Amino acid sequence: MIIEIDFNSDEAIYMQLCNQIIYGIATRAFSEGDALPSVRKLSEEIGINMHTVNKAYTVLKDEGFVKVDRRKGVVIAVDINHLEDLKEVKLELLRTLAKASCKGISREEVHGLIDEIYEEYGGYRA
Amino acid sequence: MIIEIDFNSDEAIYMQLCNQIIYGIATRAFSEGDALPSVRKLSEEIGINMHTVNKAYTVLKDEGFVKVDRRKGVVIAVDINHLEDLKEVKLELLRTLAKASCKGISREEVHGLIDEIYEEYGGYRA
Repeated sequence: MIIEIDFNSDEAIYMQLCNQIIYGIATRAFSEGDALPSVRKLSEEIGINMHTVNKAYTVLKDEGFVKVDRRKGVVIAVDINHLEDLKEVKLELLRTLAKASCKGISREEVHGLIDEIYEEYGGYRA
Repeated sequence: MIIEIDFNSDEAIYMQLCNQIIYGIATRAFSEGDALPSVRKLSEEIGINMHTVNKAYTVLKDEGFVKVDRRKGVVIAVDINHLEDLKEVKLELLRTLAKASCKGISREEVHGLIDEIYEEYGGYRA
C-alpha cells in the first residue's frame, strides 16, 4: 500500500496517516495480522518526524485498529465493540450531516453517497 | 444558543466552536442573517483566546457558513455550491465509513443512523 501525505493540507499529518491506514483496512489492502512498517522505516520513507508516525500508531491503537505484537511490531488488529463503535460513528456523522443539512443536501442524496462508498469498501468483515 | 467547549477534548477548540455554530444552523438555533457575537465578546464569554475565535470565524467564512457584514459584523450566510458541497460531504463520509466498515458496521446500520440524524436536523433549507 502506498501512503500519500499532503503537506499542504490543513489536516494534521498524523491524522492523514491514521486515515490512510484505516482506508487501507477498509479496502482490504491490509488484513488482520499484517505488520505495519516500523516507526523508523515509515518516517524515513515518507520524510516525516518519527514522533508523528508514533502519534499515528498510538491513535490507531487507542481506536482499536492495531495492536503491538512482541515479534512483529505494530500489526492490524481490529477490535470490535459494536455499541461503542456505533456511538463513535454516529458522533462523526452528526458533524458531517450538520454541514450537509445547512448546505441543503437532502437525506436522499446522503443515502446515495453512503451506497456509493459502501460499494467501494465492501465491508471488512463481510 | 449556548456554546459549550470541552477543554479536555482532543479536538482543537476553534474546530469545536465551528462545529457548534454549524450545528446551531442545522438545528435552526441560528437563521440566515443572524449576527454572531463579536470576537471579543465570545472570547470573554467562553474564556478562550481571541485568536481562537477569530480562527473559527475565518474557517466558517472559508467554508461558506458566515460572511462579514459592515454593520452587523459576522452574520450567518450559507453559501450553496451544490457540486462542491456534495464533494466535501462525500470526502468526510469516506473517512467515517472507512472506520465503520473496518468495525463491521453494516450499510443498513449507517442508513439507519442517517435517518435518525436527519429527523433531528430537519433540513435547513427545507
